Order: sequence, then C-alpha cells, then structure tokens
Amino acid sequence: MQKIDCVQGKTIFKKGDPADGLYIVGNGSVGLYFPANLDMIEPDIKLKKNDILGEMGVIDAAPRMATAKALENSTVLFISKKEFEERLAGSDVIVRGVMAILSERLRDIQRRK
Amino acid sequence: MQKIDCVQGKTIFKKGDPADGLYIVGNGSVGLYFPANLDMIEPDIKLKKNDILGEMGVIDAAPRMATAKALENSTVLFISKKEFEERLAGSDVIVRGVMAILSERLRDIQRRK
Repeated sequence: MQKIDCVQGKTIFKKGDPADGLYIVGNGSVGLYFPANLDMIEPDIKLKKNDILGEMGVIDAAPRMATAKALENSTVLFISKKEFEERLAGSDVIVRGVMAILSERLRDIQRRK
Repeated sequence: MQKIDCVQGKTIFKKGDPADGLYIVGNGSVGLYFPANLDMIEPDIKLKKNDILGEMGVIDAAPRMATAKALENSTVLFISKKEFEERLAGSDVIVRGVMAILSERLRDIQRRK
C-alpha cells in the first residue's frame, strides 16, 4: 500500500492511462470526471474518506475509463493489482469464487459496450 | 452450509423463486436454463464440480433470473445469504470494499434492464 499526497487539483489518473491498481481516499476528497464531462468544472462523482476508486484496475487490464482529481489537498492510498490479489488469496474460498464471477460478468459487460 | 442431494432432473431453483443464497456444485453437474430457452431440452450453461450458481442471491434481493436443474444425480452445497455475509465479514477490508462496489454496479445494471 502506497500513500500519495495530492495537492488540490492534482490528477490522480486520467482516462486512457494504464490501470494497475485501485485507490482509496485517505483524507480530503477526490472528484471523478466521466468522458462526457467536457468542461470538467464539476465532478460527476465526489469521493470522500474510505471511498474506493479505480477498482476496475484490479480486475481488468483495460485503461482508466474516467479521470480522477484531488478536489482539495488530499491523501490517497494506492493498492496495486498484485497486492489486491494477495489480499484476495487470503480470503474465504466462497468469497473468492463470487468475486471471480462478478468480475467476469462486469468485464463481459464492459467488452460489449 | 447445507448439502443437498439431487436426483437427475431435479429443479434446484426456478426463475421467479425468491433468492436467499447461492449454490456450489459438489458432485455431478447442473444445467442453467435462461428464460428464452423455452423447450429446456439443452441447458444454456453446464456447471460442474466447484462451479457457483445463483450468486446474485447473496448480493441482491431480486428473484432467481434462471432455472437450475441437476443434469445427473448430483450433490450441491447451499450457502445462505447470511452465511455468505459472515464469510465476507471475515475477509480483508479492501476485498470487502471492492465486493460492495462490484455488487452495487451489477445491481444497477440489473435494475436498468
């Protein structure tokens, strides 16, 4: 787990970036901007402490589908795909099975878009 | 976890049944029949040992969306929603967070259908 300090306005990731992990908001707040949000004045979603973003980055190899920016001076935690997989490997076998099915289904839906 | 012996042809659940858990194939094989499969001669999906079915039953309160039947004399294990939630509660906090997000997203997609 890697702690990253972000000044207000800092881009955490942008649409099209390669995705190799997820982020958790530690302190502050993060805005998510979907591709249709052209002026990017207001975020589509505001995330606060303990919210997760970029979660498809641990279940998929596709690039980021949105852009994330710090809305104020914030701290985010980065969990790499590898670390997530290690955490998952230590989880209950049925939890792992259900996670695999849900991930596969979301990947399918993403591919069909 | 409840072990259920099914003779060949036995209906494990049918479309529209209330859903309060998931099943894992222990021995034998299980067929899944989607609503468009009217004659139900061949299943749409064949599940074998260790495959999970009815997993939306642990993340959603919606009724079963397909019908499941034993394709031969089989054993299935039933995990109630409550038991699944207990197993999940014992899992890594980030695994739980990602499971919650994926579940919510699939529920959203289901609702929009």
